Amino acid sequence: MKKLLLAAIMLAPAVLPIHAQDAAPRSTSTRATAESLMRAAKPTLELDTTMSAEQFATWRKKMGEGMARIMKHPAAPVAAPVKVAEAQRDGYRIERWISYPLPESAVAFYVLIPNGVTAENPAPAVLCIPGFGQTKELVAGERQGNFDLVGEPDSVLRKAAMAVHFAKEGLVAVSVDNPSCGELSDNGVADYVTSSRFLLEIGWNYLGLASWQDKVILDWMKTQPEIRPDRLIVSGFSLGTEPLMVLGMLDDSIYAFVYNDFLCRTRERALVMNKPNQNGARFFPNNDEHLIPEFLTTFDFPDVVAALAPRPVICTEGGMDRDFKIISKAYEIAGAPENFEYHHYAKYADPANRQYLDSLPNGLDRNEFFRLANVDSPNHYFKLEWIMPWLHNLMAKDKK
Amino acid sequence: MKKLLLAAIMLAPAVLPIHAQDAAPRSTSTRATAESLMRAAKPTLELDTTMSAEQFATWRKKMGEGMARIMKHPAAPVAAPVKVAEAQRDGYRIERWISYPLPESAVAFYVLIPNGVTAENPAPAVLCIPGFGQTKELVAGERQGNFDLVGEPDSVLRKAAMAVHFAKEGLVAVSVDNPSCGELSDNGVADYVTSSRFLLEIGWNYLGLASWQDKVILDWMKTQPEIRPDRLIVSGFSLGTEPLMVLGMLDDSIYAFVYNDFLCRTRERALVMNKPNQNGARFFPNNDEHLIPEFLTTFDFPDVVAALAPRPVICTEGGMDRDFKIISKAYEIAGAPENFEYHHYAKYADPANRQYLDSLPNGLDRNEFFRLANVDSPNHYFKLEWIMPWLHNLMAKDKK
Repeated sequence: MKKLLLAAIMLAPAVLPIHAQDAAPRSTSTRATAESLMRAAKPTLELDTTMSAEQFATWRKKMGEGMARIMKHPAAPVAAPVKVAEAQRDGYRIERWISYPLPESAVAFYVLIPNGVTAENPAPAVLCIPGFGQTKELVAGERQGNFDLVGEPDSVLRKAAMAVHFAKEGLVAVSVDNPSCGELSDNGVADYVTSSRFLLEIGWNYLGLASWQDKVILDWMKTQPEIRPDRLIVSGFSLGTEPLMVLGMLDDSIYAFVYNDFLCRTRERALVMNKPNQNGARFFPNNDEHLIPEFLTTFDFPDVVAALAPRPVICTEGGMDRDFKIISKAYEIAGAPENFEYHHYAKYADPANRQYLDSLPNGLDRNEFFRLANVDSPNHYFKLEWIMPWLHNLMAKDKK
Repeated sequence: MKKLLLAAIMLAPAVLPIHAQDAAPRSTSTRATAESLMRAAKPTLELDTTMSAEQFATWRKKMGEGMARIMKHPAAPVAAPVKVAEAQRDGYRIERWISYPLPESAVAFYVLIPNGVTAENPAPAVLCIPGFGQTKELVAGERQGNFDLVGEPDSVLRKAAMAVHFAKEGLVAVSVDNPSCGELSDNGVADYVTSSRFLLEIGWNYLGLASWQDKVILDWMKTQPEIRPDRLIVSGFSLGTEPLMVLGMLDDSIYAFVYNDFLCRTRERALVMNKPNQNGARFFPNNDEHLIPEFLTTFDFPDVVAALAPRPVICTEGGMDRDFKIISKAYEIAGAPENFEYHHYAKYADPANRQYLDSLPNGLDRNEFFRLANVDSPNHYFKLEWIMPWLHNLMAKDKK
């Protein structure tokens, strides 16, 4: 005892974490411990690109079941949306509708119906989901806060007005708010984090609610005579790509997807973006509206995009070629390689300007992460220059 | 169609959330929606004070199972703690040990052994869990950062040095860190929120880890010859009361509990502390280290304290008489009314100075909540004046 004790004291620097039987060093930092727990928890449904077409089909089914388990959408039937206002715009009619996704809530949305589109002449339709801090008014080309569509629309046609751009192409375009922002703000304050906290307390999550609100509207779209239910597109900008991925996993009837953000492995980003700031503090790369317990231990974003195969997808803001290779391979397995299209930021369009990494190194800050992931964040916007030609091809193919 | 549309337009103020079949008004605020979802999710195991002794026993069992389900403690066996340093102090010996709660981590703790306590003359023991921002060194009366116990202890004996106060009473006292603070900080930064985020991502939570680290040490205490395993006390200060409640639900062999914080219904607090600040923003009353998905939909703090019955508990910093009445009733049902003792803050000791509410009103800020819950937060400290007499009685009873 005495001898053992002396030995112990002799090898007792303050943070001696090694246990006699240890192979690897141990950490005293709780954050480092939690980080390695997450590192060890590899996504259970990670894509295996050596799968056969049959195995791929089975995997896609599991991906859908996994997403349904995590999103916890209500089973109760919802009341039908009600139209409460409408106005004529240049080339289309805009309508304000209110949906009732939960007994407690009312969620408004806009429907843009191009002139000439009728029950007798239905059109393809697109559900437009905005980014963080954006509103359905911005997306619909209306003035901020003009919920009742009174008077004139927005004086300028912005790139972010994706619903307008789609309507001018002849599609019925629906524009929605994400929870906690715009008309869904609390007291005029966009409170993503606080709303997320309440949802997490009861075992739900922000994306679960966001995707449920969108699903209620998407399902309603299928019942509208002016809309071709077999030609539904979901277009997500930035934060809006998250509900897009959920809807894509839960609903095989969706026809195509516009993924307007850079694509990355969100789990990897959380594990490598851990450079301490000047005070030594290390953070998590995003806020609690992105906290979906057990999402990243089930699949990462590229896995989900790959599981959209064989349906047409366009990714417009690049990322790591590593991930695009894998998704392209998935589309090959699914027998539709031509249905996955992706574009890098102009800054990284030239392959010579891109980083090609199999994995990202530890200790990155946000800027270093963006550089290594080929992301030009100042040029994050709705990429009409890629999306509209892609849409024309999609529609042309359809006419054949 | 046209007629219906006109009608709709006529009743179309911007935020008309009512659906034709609605009984209650609906909200457009996501936070308000999430709040009402939480309001509707009453704790499934809420205490029913009309229970029989038999029903109470069954309920206690369910409470333990519920806590185990939520805490998700690892099943894998852990390596035995190792002693790495020791020093003699005035009236007791202090030892530094390192525990290995997870393969990735090393968690140090101190053991204070009063002079004269030996394997032949074992003593009761107390596990001392500090509050937010406090360290095991503070609790053990050692200098901050002096992990190896080199040289002199802290120059003053602070109230917060609960382990020292217990050791001076003849108990073996163990002092631990909470995760993310003190020696478990990351880079010298106490990062409760970031650590919690990583744990939540993988489907675990801060309290799950904190209580697991403490359980590993508590279980080790039972194996020590100087300790009477049938006389283990858990003493929690502030944040430390949370792992105390968990250990109490999971381990019926714990003898008694010191709950040194005000007691409140944490779920109710989150639902009523929603007064907007000057910018209109409404917040959640605490940070993510307190976010335990589905905890508050299973039970609230008073339910858990009630389920500690029939074992001795002292609550030292008051709260609402409503809750103490219910807990006292639970102790009556369990046949040990004398085993629940509680004290209000001096400021509220006179019943005439207390608020007596069956439920708290909406729209409170922190100060209003404290006032209505009889909390004198500036006087939040380890209440030796109540705890030591309680301890003497407990020990005296034991000698009978």
